Amino acid sequence: MSAEMPQTIQKNEVRAEDHDASPDPSSPAPSKHLRMRTNTAEIDSTITHPGSVKINVKGAFIVDQDAESPKAKGANGASYDTKDIRLPNHTAVVSHIAVDIGGSLAKLVYFSREPHSREPGGRLNFMNFETDRIDDCVEFMKELKIKQQKLNGSRPGALCVMATGGGGYKFYDKIREALGVDVLREDEMECLIIGLDFFITEIPREVFTYSEEEPMQFTEVHADIYPYLLVNIGSGVSMIKVSGPREYQRVGGTSLGGGTLWGLLSLLTGSRTFDEMLGMAEKGDNSKVDMLVGDIYGTDYGKIGLKSSTIASSFGKVFKMKREAEREAEDSGGLMNGDEESESSSPIIDGLADALPPKSPGSEIKKEPPFSASDISRSLLYAISNNIGQIAYLQSEKHSLSTIYFGGSFIRGHRQTMNTLSYAIKFWSNGEKKAYFLRHEGYLGAVGAFLKRQPRNWGRRGSFEEGVGLGTEARAEFSAAAREE
Amino acid sequence: MSAEMPQTIQKNEVRAEDHDASPDPSSPAPSKHLRMRTNTAEIDSTITHPGSVKINVKGAFIVDQDAESPKAKGANGASYDTKDIRLPNHTAVVSHIAVDIGGSLAKLVYFSREPHSREPGGRLNFMNFETDRIDDCVEFMKELKIKQQKLNGSRPGALCVMATGGGGYKFYDKIREALGVDVLREDEMECLIIGLDFFITEIPREVFTYSEEEPMQFTEVHADIYPYLLVNIGSGVSMIKVSGPREYQRVGGTSLGGGTLWGLLSLLTGSRTFDEMLGMAEKGDNSKVDMLVGDIYGTDYGKIGLKSSTIASSFGKVFKMKREAEREAEDSGGLMNGDEESESSSPIIDGLADALPPKSPGSEIKKEPPFSASDISRSLLYAISNNIGQIAYLQSEKHSLSTIYFGGSFIRGHRQTMNTLSYAIKFWSNGEKKAYFLRHEGYLGAVGAFLKRQPRNWGRRGSFEEGVGLGTEARAEFSAAAREE
Repeated sequence: MSAEMPQTIQKNEVRAEDHDASPDPSSPAPSKHLRMRTNTAEIDSTITHPGSVKINVKGAFIVDQDAESPKAKGANGASYDTKDIRLPNHTAVVSHIAVDIGGSLAKLVYFSREPHSREPGGRLNFMNFETDRIDDCVEFMKELKIKQQKLNGSRPGALCVMATGGGGYKFYDKIREALGVDVLREDEMECLIIGLDFFITEIPREVFTYSEEEPMQFTEVHADIYPYLLVNIGSGVSMIKVSGPREYQRVGGTSLGGGTLWGLLSLLTGSRTFDEMLGMAEKGDNSKVDMLVGDIYGTDYGKIGLKSSTIASSFGKVFKMKREAEREAEDSGGLMNGDEESESSSPIIDGLADALPPKSPGSEIKKEPPFSASDISRSLLYAISNNIGQIAYLQSEKHSLSTIYFGGSFIRGHRQTMNTLSYAIKFWSNGEKKAYFLRHEGYLGAVGAFLKRQPRNWGRRGSFEEGVGLGTEARAEFSAAAREE
Repeated sequence: MSAEMPQTIQKNEVRAEDHDASPDPSSPAPSKHLRMRTNTAEIDSTITHPGSVKINVKGAFIVDQDAESPKAKGANGASYDTKDIRLPNHTAVVSHIAVDIGGSLAKLVYFSREPHSREPGGRLNFMNFETDRIDDCVEFMKELKIKQQKLNGSRPGALCVMATGGGGYKFYDKIREALGVDVLREDEMECLIIGLDFFITEIPREVFTYSEEEPMQFTEVHADIYPYLLVNIGSGVSMIKVSGPREYQRVGGTSLGGGTLWGLLSLLTGSRTFDEMLGMAEKGDNSKVDMLVGDIYGTDYGKIGLKSSTIASSFGKVFKMKREAEREAEDSGGLMNGDEESESSSPIIDGLADALPPKSPGSEIKKEPPFSASDISRSLLYAISNNIGQIAYLQSEKHSLSTIYFGGSFIRGHRQTMNTLSYAIKFWSNGEKKAYFLRHEGYLGAVGAFLKRQPRNWGRRGSFEEGVGLGTEARAEFSAAAREE
């Protein structure tokens, strides 16, 4: 659950992620201004604009390796995301790393030159670690620091780490001590928005809609993006209303998120990885465990438009089956209710066997177990995704937002998840609203933190650090590093 | 999930449950009319008003046996609800039974004289059976039929069964053949509304608000009740917007309901009854399995008003713990992350043991298992109740409804459930909206069906049966029975 404290921030404030913003409040409205981005000359001129982040995003594109190499799995559960973003025109050294440490995953973003490549520029690299292996993440950052120093010849301490997410606070000292560098903490929600705005306005083939008919429909890179609702699905779910650059408010959320799916499925199915769980869900049949309208009515409930295939109760069949199995165990007599005969034998599921009574002689006649770990996985994936979709729709109604972006590591580009979220938004809004997804859905916060870094002589930057507790000496160190660039 | 098809019904239609309604459309608006109910003389005069249901509700009150006798448990899982409603002034024979058959429970309501009591009148009896034991329910109705005939001397076939809920359709033939009587099917949503209106407007000490400070605050019996939102929580959840008598629309719902809680907990904890599960939830500590804001931030996230005790992710700690336990099993080396040390031994939970790796030597040092079946029960009860509360609030906002009634068998007068639902409504509405509960929360539909029965010569009644498929001969039989009264 969440409170609804307004987070409105001055509109005229200088914005770090706005590559063409001028400190002059009289400059045109951002949306209009940004729309001109399609003109690359315009971009050129704005890249070096004073106060802009020193990253040349001109011609940025996603390096698609998915075809050749599958998601590389690093040691100690580190996962290298192969969807790097190439910045062919960026030559300046970016001596900082950004990390977004959530409840389950730590997401890392850093820029690297390509020493072995003849092409100019370099790329943004995306990686994630499990948060409970944060030490591996820190270790990796150490190695990066050493590499950077060799490559850039920048003096020790020049590297700067931008940290966001809850772990940015929880592990602040750990990271700082381990690396012996500055750690700048940035607000989680703000970074999410900055990152999302960057992806929407700068990266082609990043944002898309999803449906079974048209799996991946990329949307044009556009600039007139406000207002919108961001639904960020990690371990938990945050819903953020964004009215403009830096104008955002966390309007709600739900504790039923990725952590709930992963936690319950790890207990129920014995799966050991998220991808294993998603793989199971692909094969499963939720109607084995879900109570459908048809199971209750024997038909549909046309009068109020409920199809017989509509899920009336997630896992609604399980208790009944378990009771029947138990009854069989007690008295191997016939069932009272003939309707679920196929379900009356005791289920055999990895990790569930002993949650059910021993097979009774009576049940021997029936071979097939009533439901499998895959059925459970699919049912729970549906339940969680549908629920997020419904709440997102209702929040978008309450706050009159017609565009809904779904981000966060829960989605993982998984088709079933995206399809369920899309369907829920379409269903509840009677087709009036659409769900939008991103290829870097898990990295909004990390990219936002990466982009937040600016040189020292930045007029109003201090105001961003309110309550973030960035020490002055840290600021000095940081700006010293900045001068290096 | 649910569709949003408007169910608007004529306002001036004669209403069975409206004890003082006149067929004359020019009669004053129900709400005004009903407000006069506080005057018993007015009631008297209206009780016998043509077209009113032949049940004298004057002086109706709840027979409170909770103190002396606990909920009586019948054979074959039949549960006698001890909160009977006494109708001291009703003497006419009511030769019908009403049953509301849902996905998990069949709720039975019938009127009985009190042969062994010297007092006049009789009482409304409330009972429920598990739906998969529908045959026991039918058997009980058979016995009732025989009793009724002895008592009332009414001829065979005089008994009439009013059936609603999905089972009213699914088991229509079964009941009809078994009892050899008519079965009148009534629309589920309509019956819920009729029943709720009856409880709100007729029964003292029925409706109440709940909070830890003031556990059970009864609301005055009042008449000006529209509009309101009814959240009916059974196996699944239906949310119904009620604008006036018979003016209702199912605006939404969620598949995460009682069936989900019971199904998952029966698998996870090995509990065999709802009450066992609720008992466990009482003792549990959800913070053992839920990821709290404090677990992620190490503190609160004050900037957006999230307390460190706020649940960020339900079951969000489980996957991490399981991974750690597994890692220990693999290499009995120390944990990467020291934060969950007390949770790093493999949990011992009924029905979960084998969902986790065997205890490793490394984990022997730690005695206490990280979480128990009770912790799981409490976490899931919170998750489901919070979620229903949030969706109910958002729906009430979308449809501008300030009063929210919670009904359905999921609640079962369970304090934690009511407290969580109340808190959710209070939290999301910033204290502007209230949750209302009923002592007969599970019997709205059954009572509504019971009250729907009227004598034959009832002008517009036919219109109610649209699409319900009541055969003409059945109608004839039924009215013959009606004449008996």
